[in-house]
Amino acid sequence: MTDKDLVFDDRKSVTKSQAHEGLVVVASLIDKAPNLGGLCRTCEILGVGALVIGNKNIVKDKEFSAVSVTSENWVPLLECPPHRLGPWLLEKRAEGFRIVAVEQTANSVSLNSFTFPVKCVLLLGKEKEGVPVELLDLVDDCVEIPQHGFIRSLNVHVTGALVVWEYVKQ
Amino acid sequence: MTDKDLVFDDRKSVTKSQAHEGLVVVASLIDKAPNLGGLCRTCEILGVGALVIGNKNIVKDKEFSAVSVTSENWVPLLECPPHRLGPWLLEKRAEGFRIVAVEQTANSVSLNSFTFPVKCVLLLGKEKEGVPVELLDLVDDCVEIPQHGFIRSLNVHVTGALVVWEYVKQ
Repeated sequence: MTDKDLVFDDRKSVTKSQAHEGLVVVASLIDKAPNLGGLCRTCEILGVGALVIGNKNIVKDKEFSAVSVTSENWVPLLECPPHRLGPWLLEKRAEGFRIVAVEQTANSVSLNSFTFPVKCVLLLGKEKEGVPVELLDLVDDCVEIPQHGFIRSLNVHVTGALVVWEYVKQ
Repeated sequence: MTDKDLVFDDRKSVTKSQAHEGLVVVASLIDKAPNLGGLCRTCEILGVGALVIGNKNIVKDKEFSAVSVTSENWVPLLECPPHRLGPWLLEKRAEGFRIVAVEQTANSVSLNSFTFPVKCVLLLGKEKEGVPVELLDLVDDCVEIPQHGFIRSLNVHVTGALVVWEYVKQ
């Protein structure tokens, strides 16, 4: 990523190194502030390289900060609005990242058996609709969490947490 | 578990089998409705055998149901108030369960290397205080999630989700 992508210039002074620099989590498609705040906290604690959000103003939202508990100050935050995700993902791939969508598709690999690339962009879907088809066309892999229940799907924050955890373990 | 423990008699008619009957998640120490509702959803989807809550009335809370999305109808729910957890855990152990607390202690095993027992009671801690010492004295094992960040700890719902996921994988 380039410096111009950084949302908060004044946070460049934060020199804490991320344990997992190679992992970039893309949450631009997520709408709900509690999900974003929770994901921010989880990404910080698990040492994710960067978290990409659709709109930097979300960090001022009370619902965000109630859950993020200041983690937004410590995890590198980038801003990319949903409509710019396509070109942005292609740019990341040109930088050597592999693009992995977390989505249930006919070709998805189970999280149980997926081997993560070291340089990995993890694309999370919208709360209800998931990852739009035009973006699925751009990704290298789809990974899904095997689910047993009647309820349709895991909350997107939990989904992200499980996938980040698997990356970190590997 | 015995039938008398079941919170909702009218749900005994639900015959859906749980994928992971041997796993009982204890959330009695958790106070916040969104955490409990979220955990209920996650437990249902990952096929947990039963979820234990401190007070059955929580399922009527709007903050619970907003997150649980009806999963409380499909995961077996038991009720055990916090002050009765001690004897209840001992009872479960007598039934052949191993009691595993999710807590950061000097003797905790990392979730990376922990081998789960098939019959496993997973005890989650309070949102801030964690698992009280008098209960830690009763458990067989403590497991912890390795954390890299500055922020103190993961949200209890996410913590539970990661540990349940590891059990399910094994």
